[in-house]
Amino acid sequence: MGRWEPNARGRLAEAALELYSERGFEQTTVAEIARRAGLTERTFFRHYADKREVLFSGVVPLRDLFTRAVADAPGAAAPVDAVALGLEALGEAFPSDRRAFSRVRQEVITANAELQERELVKLASMADELADTLRARGVSEPAASLAAEAGIAVFKVAFERWIGADEEGGLAPLIREALAELKAVLAPGRGAGVV
Amino acid sequence: MGRWEPNARGRLAEAALELYSERGFEQTTVAEIARRAGLTERTFFRHYADKREVLFSGVVPLRDLFTRAVADAPGAAAPVDAVALGLEALGEAFPSDRRAFSRVRQEVITANAELQERELVKLASMADELADTLRARGVSEPAASLAAEAGIAVFKVAFERWIGADEEGGLAPLIREALAELKAVLAPGRGAGVV
Repeated sequence: MGRWEPNARGRLAEAALELYSERGFEQTTVAEIARRAGLTERTFFRHYADKREVLFSGVVPLRDLFTRAVADAPGAAAPVDAVALGLEALGEAFPSDRRAFSRVRQEVITANAELQERELVKLASMADELADTLRARGVSEPAASLAAEAGIAVFKVAFERWIGADEEGGLAPLIREALAELKAVLAPGRGAGVV
Repeated sequence: MGRWEPNARGRLAEAALELYSERGFEQTTVAEIARRAGLTERTFFRHYADKREVLFSGVVPLRDLFTRAVADAPGAAAPVDAVALGLEALGEAFPSDRRAFSRVRQEVITANAELQERELVKLASMADELADTLRARGVSEPAASLAAEAGIAVFKVAFERWIGADEEGGLAPLIREALAELKAVLAPGRGAGVV
């Protein structure tokens, strides 16, 4: 067992992202990531199973944050309001100072078909968990699956806007805007979004 | 060049689905598919690039059907109404007698992680095309992306219900129901779907 390294996990993630961005995900080795972080390969493998996990290890905690907030919503909350509370919790997890990391991560994923597939699988599993959580709240089908898919769609669209945005700020306001816009788009007799 | 075989493409697809379902996708060879269909491997490769394409060659025509109907919607139609016309066209492409094939196809895909990923990529690219089509109609962002994601969510949820349903019937009515339910779920002050 090596000695404890202060914030080894974060340093490895940062070093990995830098290297994936500079020379491509495929071309980067674990040895190089460890060297850039000033750590050993052994330390790398104490924190991550492989170099792909550096990009995806954050997804499960985020999914749990999302579904826990939905599960904890007041019992009387409508499905969409429970999902909104989950989205709110998710938005708070992406403050302004996380954007640079999120942006580089997304560029790395977009450049690699295999990583893109994995990202889609993660989002689909988030939607499935969310639908399970809504059903556990007594929401029937297909409302549970539809509310879950709508929640993931809001997150996805807001996230893309966030990492593409010029101005400062966290993800939360963009999530609120996207949810309001989705409601407007689906409201009867509204021509929302038409210029 | 071999002689023309009547409905070789359809026979190959049916033989492939049977074999994937009986012994698994991985365990099936192109030679076996051709033999089951009473055709040659050479004929197989005139119709499909590989054994995976048998499962996914239908996606591009469906995507085109969907986006064409959206593009052709009356100019004054709201984004959601244009998407509804696309969904209607898509629903008509899955009549009652296509369900057995769709169901087996889905079972084969669900049993294989790589095929699941490919299916998710196809759905994501369908959403992207749909958003492009809406933007070409003058729909602004994020409404275009949100309406597109909502359309794909409706299709996905309706399709899952359709292949799981006991009673006869095509996909179209389930698509209409799912769209109505999504609107109800997102309507303000509605507790839709709560039992």
